[in-house]
Amino acid sequence: MTTILTQELNKNNQSNLEQENPPQDSRQRAKKLVMDLQDRICQGLEKIDGKATFQEDNWQRKEGGGGRTRVIRDGGVFEQGGVNFSEVWGDELPSSILIQRPEGAGHGFYATGTSMVLHPRNPYVPTVHLNYRYFEAGPVWWFGGGADLTPYYGFAEDAVHFHHTLKESCDRHNPQYYPTFKKWCDEYFYLKHRQEARGIGGIFFDYQNSEGKLYGGTNSQGLTNKYSEKVGKINHSWEDIFAFVKSCGNAFLPSYLPIVERRKNMDYGERERNFQLYRRGRYVEFNLVYDRGTIFGLQTNGRTESILMSLPPLTRWEYGYQPEKESPEAQLTDFYLQSKDWTSLKI
Amino acid sequence: MTTILTQELNKNNQSNLEQENPPQDSRQRAKKLVMDLQDRICQGLEKIDGKATFQEDNWQRKEGGGGRTRVIRDGGVFEQGGVNFSEVWGDELPSSILIQRPEGAGHGFYATGTSMVLHPRNPYVPTVHLNYRYFEAGPVWWFGGGADLTPYYGFAEDAVHFHHTLKESCDRHNPQYYPTFKKWCDEYFYLKHRQEARGIGGIFFDYQNSEGKLYGGTNSQGLTNKYSEKVGKINHSWEDIFAFVKSCGNAFLPSYLPIVERRKNMDYGERERNFQLYRRGRYVEFNLVYDRGTIFGLQTNGRTESILMSLPPLTRWEYGYQPEKESPEAQLTDFYLQSKDWTSLKI
Repeated sequence: MTTILTQELNKNNQSNLEQENPPQDSRQRAKKLVMDLQDRICQGLEKIDGKATFQEDNWQRKEGGGGRTRVIRDGGVFEQGGVNFSEVWGDELPSSILIQRPEGAGHGFYATGTSMVLHPRNPYVPTVHLNYRYFEAGPVWWFGGGADLTPYYGFAEDAVHFHHTLKESCDRHNPQYYPTFKKWCDEYFYLKHRQEARGIGGIFFDYQNSEGKLYGGTNSQGLTNKYSEKVGKINHSWEDIFAFVKSCGNAFLPSYLPIVERRKNMDYGERERNFQLYRRGRYVEFNLVYDRGTIFGLQTNGRTESILMSLPPLTRWEYGYQPEKESPEAQLTDFYLQSKDWTSLKI
Repeated sequence: MTTILTQELNKNNQSNLEQENPPQDSRQRAKKLVMDLQDRICQGLEKIDGKATFQEDNWQRKEGGGGRTRVIRDGGVFEQGGVNFSEVWGDELPSSILIQRPEGAGHGFYATGTSMVLHPRNPYVPTVHLNYRYFEAGPVWWFGGGADLTPYYGFAEDAVHFHHTLKESCDRHNPQYYPTFKKWCDEYFYLKHRQEARGIGGIFFDYQNSEGKLYGGTNSQGLTNKYSEKVGKINHSWEDIFAFVKSCGNAFLPSYLPIVERRKNMDYGERERNFQLYRRGRYVEFNLVYDRGTIFGLQTNGRTESILMSLPPLTRWEYGYQPEKESPEAQLTDFYLQSKDWTSLKI
């Protein structure tokens, strides 16, 4: 590992790009950041769940690296969910990423990150996703990630709270971050084949480095929307982005737990449960057809059980389902899944 | 439509390839073949189901073409299933197919086919899939398709019967067909990320035309196994392949119904039901990550509800599930999902 690290850092030093070099201990710091985040998030979630605890599996990847998978099941709040940490390295990035970062071709790579999906049992508690990751590959490095919310039944109060918390955390670093990454999130978590947003969004960014360019791009299926709008450059250093990612990670529990608290004891019946199971199907469709992290994992011989831990415990598909007009189920798609500026919403 | 047809046929006539031209009425004949097949299969399935009937939706595709979707639900045997017919045309094939048939680039295309997936309620009745399709694109045309079986609990008798019926139908046309297309099926319906076959196979072929070459290839995710073995050429004309596809289609009911008959009244409990729902997850993973037909449909703005009709009504994911050693659940993966020559199996 040390040899690979040294080789990679040397390569970085020889790079002719404008991009600054990362600090010498970049990988260790990024790794610690995401591991600490995994720890704190798990603690906070266990506390609110009140019944189940995370079970941990440590695993190694034959080609280099490994991870720490934590799964919670049959809890007071969470029907199933997982918070992953992983660190992988290898000879070359998989094609799905090289399409976006051709500078990485022919170089070894290093990637570390934490990713999380939680599927609550109560249909009034939204599913949530978080992922922060750091990559180095030859002359390039970048951070990516974000957090987004997928309610089954919409509550404006919840959507506003979630976005507001993330925005505050972004604004402390750069006023461009929230509007840019909020929009990117809406575009990324979009099911083109359903012409439907996955949820009410949050923030998402990828390929953030000191070149400051904002990259978007399609996935290898050609199905993801391209983040094509020219938003110019954001000038930020490795340290700036590192600090920003740290803030966003720290904002997770305050953005999500108050929503869980408000919704977890709401009564529901078969109708709400059936709708939740049906909507979970969209989550599966997104993760298996579009999600960059999932495809990266499957292409790099990642640990399948850890990658697909994001899939819901129970899911339903129904041909031709249409919610009744004006019903709460119809409001989800007609109002909540329509991209909007949540932080300006009057509630 | 007539104009497009004529234009395409003219283009075919100008082709310099060795490939013979299809008959003048190729599209009409292929369309009738798959529509008739849809009709007969639906009749046979309704008869054995004994309770539910297929509900039909006719739909049109904005960019050209349309289809006839038939769905059965809450039946005596079938929990959910669909038999699709579709016919689509457009300016150019999507990238997922052009990778395989670059000769089609820059040409309009025509495609027609029938596809079917049935999810029985009783875990002892296997899920079954069938698809036959015909393509024309500029100078090239080809047939593809096949049928394969996905049991939840294995019965050697059923696997032998299914393969034997298909083999007989293949052997009447060409002794190379069954061994070649059986192997192709095993390679195609393989979940690389699980290192697991989807089911016990059947037959699968693609890109069959009078050039006789056997094409394999990866999907656009780079995840499907390549059918790379050189099996040489199979010399067959448009009429030969058409007749062969017809035979295979006709073999479907005799290959599947006797299995349903034997298993549909077997007693089962929560354990078997849970295992069935868990294994259905693999079906979802295959269809959304690997399946050429699904990705083709989503990329060509197909009718999403009809394409994803193949997904099961209820599905379960469970992190780190391991069946008990020597149990029927373990036998599924340890014996039945291991590729073997079913027609030579002594039972």
